[in-house]
Amino acid sequence: MPPAAAEPLTPERILATTEEVLRRFGPTKATVVDVARALGVSHGSVYRHFPSKAALREAVTDRWLARSVVMLEEIASAPTGSAPSKLEAWLEALFEAKRHKAGDDPELFATYTVLLAENSGVVDAHLSELIDQLGRIIAEGVAAGSLAADDVPAAARAVFDATGRFHDPQYAADWLSPTIITEFEAVTALVIRGLRA
Amino acid sequence: MPPAAAEPLTPERILATTEEVLRRFGPTKATVVDVARALGVSHGSVYRHFPSKAALREAVTDRWLARSVVMLEEIASAPTGSAPSKLEAWLEALFEAKRHKAGDDPELFATYTVLLAENSGVVDAHLSELIDQLGRIIAEGVAAGSLAADDVPAAARAVFDATGRFHDPQYAADWLSPTIITEFEAVTALVIRGLRA
Repeated sequence: MPPAAAEPLTPERILATTEEVLRRFGPTKATVVDVARALGVSHGSVYRHFPSKAALREAVTDRWLARSVVMLEEIASAPTGSAPSKLEAWLEALFEAKRHKAGDDPELFATYTVLLAENSGVVDAHLSELIDQLGRIIAEGVAAGSLAADDVPAAARAVFDATGRFHDPQYAADWLSPTIITEFEAVTALVIRGLRA
Repeated sequence: MPPAAAEPLTPERILATTEEVLRRFGPTKATVVDVARALGVSHGSVYRHFPSKAALREAVTDRWLARSVVMLEEIASAPTGSAPSKLEAWLEALFEAKRHKAGDDPELFATYTVLLAENSGVVDAHLSELIDQLGRIIAEGVAAGSLAADDVPAAARAVFDATGRFHDPQYAADWLSPTIITEFEAVTALVIRGLRA
């Protein structure tokens, strides 16, 4: 990434460059000075947007997690489609997004695994957002009579927990197994069947 | 454990002592010489039963895992009780056994987490045995008309995967959460509902 100090120094540019720097140097070696150098600015300029290295790492973690949320939100809030088929599409999209992150860019994925452990608050907020999306799909199904749940937030949490093997980064090594798609489909079918009215 | 060389040196005595030694010294420091010393025998006597340190570690891992299998097998092969209630009892017993192992003796649990990573063949065989027990309960329910499954082994695997948060040692830290029992019950109810005929 060539220095391009002429462009305005936005938080987004800083975060994109931070991701590049993390990918190149790894999470233990990357510093704010490296980020500033890659941007062709002083480290003071970076600190004006992110007051500490910790704040910058937190923001980059948040941005990485947020990327899949937008696409999942589109499925959750789609005006058409039955709740059971939305649920299936949502779980598939989540698994696919995670597998791609782990498979296409394993170094960056490993980096983020380190950052996730550091920023448990950011991770918890991310997981709540995902479970909230699941809850909206389930509530829609309950209203339409296709799904049954006495306690929608608890059901959403149960669906999320039951499918953990297919989105928790702890299981990333399993995602390379030749039988993983079949196993994912079996769990998804079981869970959706368990919610049917 | 005082030396008691007068007792016959059975594999079971060697394994019980090895567990003690592992608990005391940790998995990286414990040696066959430590085990022999605790037993009051020569290390050659230990090697007559277990030809290498690796064989001894594998056998002690196997013995640790086998302990919960016996109790779960009793539930799986009980002559009375409906399949859905057996399934619930089996999943509860598995979670309780794991939580006790992790909570009552965290040092030994951490030791075994290291051994599990070393002996993936032993672990795979153990998991197959558990999934096989689940399969027998499900097959019984299918025969009695209380459960439905086109492919019983696949359904057993799906139940095991869907409840992973409550038996996979990777999640041991979560088992201390005040809401874990509620979350376990929600997942179990969802999964059993998903299998009902």
